[in-house]
Amino acid sequence: MDEKIFVIGHKNPDTDSICSAIAYAEFKNRTIKSDVVPARCGDLNSESKFVLDKFNIDTPKLIEDATDKSIILVDHNEFSQAVDNLDKANIKEVIDHHKVNFKYSEPIYFLSKPVGATATIISKKFFENKIEPRKEIAGILLASILSDTVIFKSVTTTSFDRKMAERLAEICEISNIKDFGIEVKRAKSSLKGLKPQDIILSDFKDFNMGGKKIGIGQIEIVDRTEVDEIRNDLISELDNMRERGNYTLVILMVTDIIKEGSELLVTGDYSIVEKTFRKSITNNSVYLESVMSRKKEIVHPLESTLS
Amino acid sequence: MDEKIFVIGHKNPDTDSICSAIAYAEFKNRTIKSDVVPARCGDLNSESKFVLDKFNIDTPKLIEDATDKSIILVDHNEFSQAVDNLDKANIKEVIDHHKVNFKYSEPIYFLSKPVGATATIISKKFFENKIEPRKEIAGILLASILSDTVIFKSVTTTSFDRKMAERLAEICEISNIKDFGIEVKRAKSSLKGLKPQDIILSDFKDFNMGGKKIGIGQIEIVDRTEVDEIRNDLISELDNMRERGNYTLVILMVTDIIKEGSELLVTGDYSIVEKTFRKSITNNSVYLESVMSRKKEIVHPLESTLS
Repeated sequence: MDEKIFVIGHKNPDTDSICSAIAYAEFKNRTIKSDVVPARCGDLNSESKFVLDKFNIDTPKLIEDATDKSIILVDHNEFSQAVDNLDKANIKEVIDHHKVNFKYSEPIYFLSKPVGATATIISKKFFENKIEPRKEIAGILLASILSDTVIFKSVTTTSFDRKMAERLAEICEISNIKDFGIEVKRAKSSLKGLKPQDIILSDFKDFNMGGKKIGIGQIEIVDRTEVDEIRNDLISELDNMRERGNYTLVILMVTDIIKEGSELLVTGDYSIVEKTFRKSITNNSVYLESVMSRKKEIVHPLESTLS
Repeated sequence: MDEKIFVIGHKNPDTDSICSAIAYAEFKNRTIKSDVVPARCGDLNSESKFVLDKFNIDTPKLIEDATDKSIILVDHNEFSQAVDNLDKANIKEVIDHHKVNFKYSEPIYFLSKPVGATATIISKKFFENKIEPRKEIAGILLASILSDTVIFKSVTTTSFDRKMAERLAEICEISNIKDFGIEVKRAKSSLKGLKPQDIILSDFKDFNMGGKKIGIGQIEIVDRTEVDEIRNDLISELDNMRERGNYTLVILMVTDIIKEGSELLVTGDYSIVEKTFRKSITNNSVYLESVMSRKKEIVHPLESTLS
């Protein structure tokens, strides 16, 4: 066994996975004398890159195989989402905010709380142990909370996320939390330089509704003008996908996190959408005010229509 | 759904399961305004009865079916050990000190720590929230820690268990923690009025070692004279069991928690025991100094001999 302990988030890491690993390693090294090192099992996305750059924090070490390593898991607990060969690792702790689906042979420290971000839990660990996080660590924790809660707009947001964010903002001297959140989200949501196919597939899921194959993608944006420029390209790519994949209906949710609503770009049998939301579709597009959740506000209503 | 939330330990409840449920319900009712009620899914053992009597605490409500109830699990997390129909319940929280083997559909508060007792974790919840447990609650929490750690002698004991025990002892004005621990354990370990078969089967496990069937029971005692009186009856009952069950070897570990060692009562092919521990067996008995763990100090060495 390696003497180091690696703190690592899930595959396809997001900002909460990356920054929680960094912050928790720092917390452990400040509370117990040990060699705890942040790690990652995938490339940084543009948002995480922006956040680490902004606060001058090094990119965590890449680990592709957990065999014989001592590991602390953050922001996930399911083996299917974890670094390869986690079953051959020595798991020390788990800190997460997702549902629990975990089995391990020894009693270990395992903490999961139903809050908006793992960073919220790790912030509390600092404060309850009366350890003030360094300004840089407070910055990346704040960015993680804002990222994972979509600037407090996600249904998973709790008052506890807001409370931690406010304390962190004071430490890293960020006066307008919302503006900082937009800055963080903008780093990820920029569509510049991306192919329409990559934009659509970045978060795309297939559903079977009453025997019909329906595909629904979602992107988050902060700058609508970027979408205006490529709307026609997105629609024709959606139509290509529909034909190639034999979909009845293909939808791309373009969720505007500033305006708090989603434009649906639709190809295929769009009468299903019109019937469900009682709105007509013009030029393959319809705007749904305040709709932000794919699962609750798009998938569930469509299933009702088609059941 | 019932509006109440029930806090409940595992089936065949021990003192830690019973008292942790009572104490955590009290903690929840003092920190959030809600109707949280302690419960149990089985009869109290003699030790738990003694502890509740001593501190004038009511026996928790018996719950045999969790269907449609809101439930907080303490001192276990595996569905196989839990109240019936837990899969039809609304699980709110889990607080435990065992290995995690849990799956649930929603994110919930889940806390497991590798300490000696669930009562240790619950004591910390009181103290970290700056809520002093009532004297009676401190008493049952202390009794639970002493019971589950076998008065700090179990290998699972941590410095944290001792620290919590000391704070609790101050509150419930118990000056000699060890003496109180012996009082608690004596309440359970008394063999008076029990049949030899019931004594042996109270904690008995079958093992297959190199194709041989081996049965090993364990009892904890604080008063050796009680065993002296029934030693011959225990040995002849062990021999009956061996014959009926076609065991190669049957062992009863009589663990003396005061003297910190175990007498093994042995029937069958006891050369295996003599070879393993390099001691001869006289009148079906051998004493092993400082040996207290069945799993680590009896099962593992026997497996080495027979592998």
